[in-house]
Amino acid sequence: MPVITFDGGKLDKAQKAELAKVFTENAARVTNIPATAFVVFFKENDPENVAVGGTLLADRRQ
Amino acid sequence: MPVITFDGGKLDKAQKAELAKVFTENAARVTNIPATAFVVFFKENDPENVAVGGTLLADRRQ
Amino acid sequence: MPVITFDGGKLDKAQKAELAKVFTENAARVTNIPATAFVVFFKENDPENVAVGGTLLADRRQ
Amino acid sequence: MPVITFDGGKLDKAQKAELAKVFTENAARVTNIPATAFVVFFKENDPENVAVGGTLLADRRQ
Amino acid sequence: MPVITFDGGKLDKAQKAELAKVFTENAARVTNIPATAFVVFFKENDPENVAVGGTLLADRRQ
Amino acid sequence: MPVITFDGGKLDKAQKAELAKVFTENAARVTNIPATAFVVFFKENDPENVAVGGTLLADRRQ
Repeated sequence: MPVITFDGGKLDKAQKAELAKVFTENAARVTNIPATAFVVFFKENDPENVAVGGTLLADRRQ
Repeated sequence: MPVITFDGGKLDKAQKAELAKVFTENAARVTNIPATAFVVFFKENDPENVAVGGTLLADRRQ
Repeated sequence: MPVITFDGGKLDKAQKAELAKVFTENAARVTNIPATAFVVFFKENDPENVAVGGTLLADRRQ
Repeated sequence: MPVITFDGGKLDKAQKAELAKVFTENAARVTNIPATAFVVFFKENDPENVAVGGTLLADRRQ
Repeated sequence: MPVITFDGGKLDKAQKAELAKVFTENAARVTNIPATAFVVFFKENDPENVAVGGTLLADRRQ
Repeated sequence: MPVITFDGGKLDKAQKAELAKVFTENAARVTNIPATAFVVFFKENDPENVAVGGTLLADRRQ
């Protein structure tokens, strides 16, 4: 039942597969909840849709 | 004002229209808040962006 | 796996039990996903922590 | 560290740049936390994925 | 309809009232959506429930 | 900048400290983003505020 949400930039499939595995295994170990109960969502955001310090990442990278 | 968020896989428009209607009507009835005050968001996630039990849905379906 | 989040004000337990049931049953029916796969979260917010039209609910009710 | 999320419809880049700037500057001023610590996410939703009063925006606009 | 969520630490009521007002006024101006359509949520998190750089804020402050 | 949110039940401080550390270290390694850029939020939910399969956890445990 616990839900882990990763909100960041674009990732490739191998990165998401590894993060889902390591997040779930560790969360199951630490909380003592079965791994099968965990849901992980990856939210990939365009550099135009994220700002740090008031500046869009898309503008920082220009 | 209440906000209902549905985070899942891909849905077609008719499914979203029906869910928005039934969620809102029932929430309005149970909470006694006017239906017009409810907002519903559908967040559709790629099978590569969701994991259950530490495995991406995209890999489960292979 | 789908996650439904209800973000609103304070509810009593009977309201939450009914909403969880009706949201899940309808979502299972419309999406054809087993009801057991659905998670529902209720996020109860203080009137001081919600604003509509730029005014906190706590100030509207004064 | 504070995270501001704007969940709405489609915006152009100039609108997002201005909102990120004004949200961050004001939040930094009011909370006394450095502007560099703030993250802003824009979540742009299709009219088919948002409902108000139980009706999808995509159907309201027809 | 747009929903602005501020996820940070504890704020007092005056801070929340000012942020709700300034966020909504600016968002209405930039998006050309009526201010009355905006909802703002403040999510106040305990220092034990937030980490930056892998360390809980509660431990940073010790 | 990436934000990891853990939405589950009640945890003690040691569990949260360990999860924040292991999530951040692994996410930094896999994404090649500095660990200092990661924010982790723990959202602890009452058993009355979470349902699985349409039944509140508070009622399952009775």
